[in-house]
Amino acid sequence: MDNAPARTEDKPLLQSLKGQPAERLPIWLMRQAGRYLPEYREVRAKAKDFIDFCFRPDLAAEATLQPLRRFDLDAAIVFSDILVVPLALGQKVWFEEGKGPRLEPIRKPEDLTGLSADDLEPRLAAVYETLETVAAELPAGKALIGFAGAPWTLASYMIEGQTSRDFSRLKRFAYGQPEAFARLLDLLVEAVARHLVAQVRAGAETVQIFDSWAGVLPEPELKAWSLAPMAEIARRVGADCPEVPVIAFPRGAGLTYAAFAEGGDFDALGLDTTLPLGWAAERLQPKAVVQGNLDPVKLLVGGSVLTRGVDAILEALGPRRLVFNLGHGVLPETPPEHVAELVARVRGTQA
Amino acid sequence: MDNAPARTEDKPLLQSLKGQPAERLPIWLMRQAGRYLPEYREVRAKAKDFIDFCFRPDLAAEATLQPLRRFDLDAAIVFSDILVVPLALGQKVWFEEGKGPRLEPIRKPEDLTGLSADDLEPRLAAVYETLETVAAELPAGKALIGFAGAPWTLASYMIEGQTSRDFSRLKRFAYGQPEAFARLLDLLVEAVARHLVAQVRAGAETVQIFDSWAGVLPEPELKAWSLAPMAEIARRVGADCPEVPVIAFPRGAGLTYAAFAEGGDFDALGLDTTLPLGWAAERLQPKAVVQGNLDPVKLLVGGSVLTRGVDAILEALGPRRLVFNLGHGVLPETPPEHVAELVARVRGTQA
Repeated sequence: MDNAPARTEDKPLLQSLKGQPAERLPIWLMRQAGRYLPEYREVRAKAKDFIDFCFRPDLAAEATLQPLRRFDLDAAIVFSDILVVPLALGQKVWFEEGKGPRLEPIRKPEDLTGLSADDLEPRLAAVYETLETVAAELPAGKALIGFAGAPWTLASYMIEGQTSRDFSRLKRFAYGQPEAFARLLDLLVEAVARHLVAQVRAGAETVQIFDSWAGVLPEPELKAWSLAPMAEIARRVGADCPEVPVIAFPRGAGLTYAAFAEGGDFDALGLDTTLPLGWAAERLQPKAVVQGNLDPVKLLVGGSVLTRGVDAILEALGPRRLVFNLGHGVLPETPPEHVAELVARVRGTQA
Repeated sequence: MDNAPARTEDKPLLQSLKGQPAERLPIWLMRQAGRYLPEYREVRAKAKDFIDFCFRPDLAAEATLQPLRRFDLDAAIVFSDILVVPLALGQKVWFEEGKGPRLEPIRKPEDLTGLSADDLEPRLAAVYETLETVAAELPAGKALIGFAGAPWTLASYMIEGQTSRDFSRLKRFAYGQPEAFARLLDLLVEAVARHLVAQVRAGAETVQIFDSWAGVLPEPELKAWSLAPMAEIARRVGADCPEVPVIAFPRGAGLTYAAFAEGGDFDALGLDTTLPLGWAAERLQPKAVVQGNLDPVKLLVGGSVLTRGVDAILEALGPRRLVFNLGHGVLPETPPEHVAELVARVRGTQA
């Protein structure tokens, strides 16, 4: 079979995520396809707007593959956005140039009635076509990552209508309308799980669930509204695609990262920039592969700040059961040469 | 002496902060003087702008005392702003209505040359006058709290020029210009320590250092740029005013709260909303009094969400070595009746 999928043992990222000995320590970067690359800005300019960009498989596949042409990374992550899920559920979503996402916000329980997952996969067909295109062109040894936003983070955008500083509208809804909020989370669990399974069917070999705003919740609510829905999604993906590792990225979860590791629902945990390395090595790594967590500003600054940051992570967490990554996305002002230096440093220490 | 200062044993807040048995579990709230009170909005309207408000002792003293007239709180916190320190150092600071603070930002090491602490106390005389006015009018049993921003948080505003989402300018300066950044932190340690000592001389009986943006740093930098400067400030205040308890509020410090407790430099630690109560009881409370940490949105929502939140904190952390507070400031939309309910709940459980 010429088109037989690559075996796990050929791909360092998949080897590591499954806790197997890897040929080399894998590295990929959140937002590795992005504005810091001039070729990204070129392809971005061909789209009408950001939503159009996400739904143009030719452009999105090109953006996905660009960083792998420049850098010796171990994976491509499909170029898309977490807000394609609210969009597919029927919410109005748009991007204001230079301002970020805007949504027609959910402000009361009745606003939920317009949302439905019935047409989710057809509405997201373009994303799956992007994955198929990338899968066909991906160089040997490189893995393809699918992703989605976690229910709590998606709910934050759906209720706030945009990014927020204190998330008081979101929390007010969650605390004050618990039944309606539970219905919204249930709908998002269903939608996210199906979106991830569909991405796997289109070629994704591992999936990451981003809970970017996990860090604003008290511990009990973090467990109820971030961890529990993500664990349920991981179980559903696992039931349909048992070979596919699931990475959870509960940014800012702090001490509650331990609960994410202990449940055993995730193959790997993405660590944010602030998580202490020693504690992660002791408390998390025995139970889950860890991924992270260089401060993106250290990548931006470069030089000895970068190399010392890299070395500290490799020393504390490497080389087994570690996927090298940033603790958050690549910043737009990052010089591309610094990414090359980062990859070289990670490679060099494994010689 | 009619004007003899009240003894510690008369004031539950000071008793608790010193680890002594308190007559009752003390409670005060961050931003207890603020926009959620109609009488605050009235007095605010008499000032030309927010800076003018902070430097008008008659108005600021009135704002400081207002919440104590409505609620049975155990302390007043002087109405002021953390940005009076950059202002006193010679930086241009102003507030744009509805947008928050703006500063003429420090962008390169040379920009630091214009800053000096030489005239700090005379420039902040109005703040000390506010404290003197409040101290003279404070009801029996109530304590007076002074405060300042921590060097890291002050530096964030001084370098970013406003609040920020990712603090990339600040971190870029800190990582990329380490000598200049160290000079800035040293200047801020000096200025903040002197500002706190001057507040004590004007009547403050305890002081809180707010590090609102501690939560964006990796562990080593959090220790170097948040904990170390705050500890040095606490030592300087302790040298001049050994009877005055110092509260550190390193918001978002997560696991590194343990290092704040272990150093022994602070009498009390303000816990942010996200810090798990069980861990705080086990790891922090044996070494420092703890203060916090109800989610301000639970206060805003009220009802059973509020009472369950209060009860969970009292059960996990009370009644000894606890000062009841929020995990962040009172939100402007908070109904004042909810504050009355909160105080009653805290009082009720101690009957």
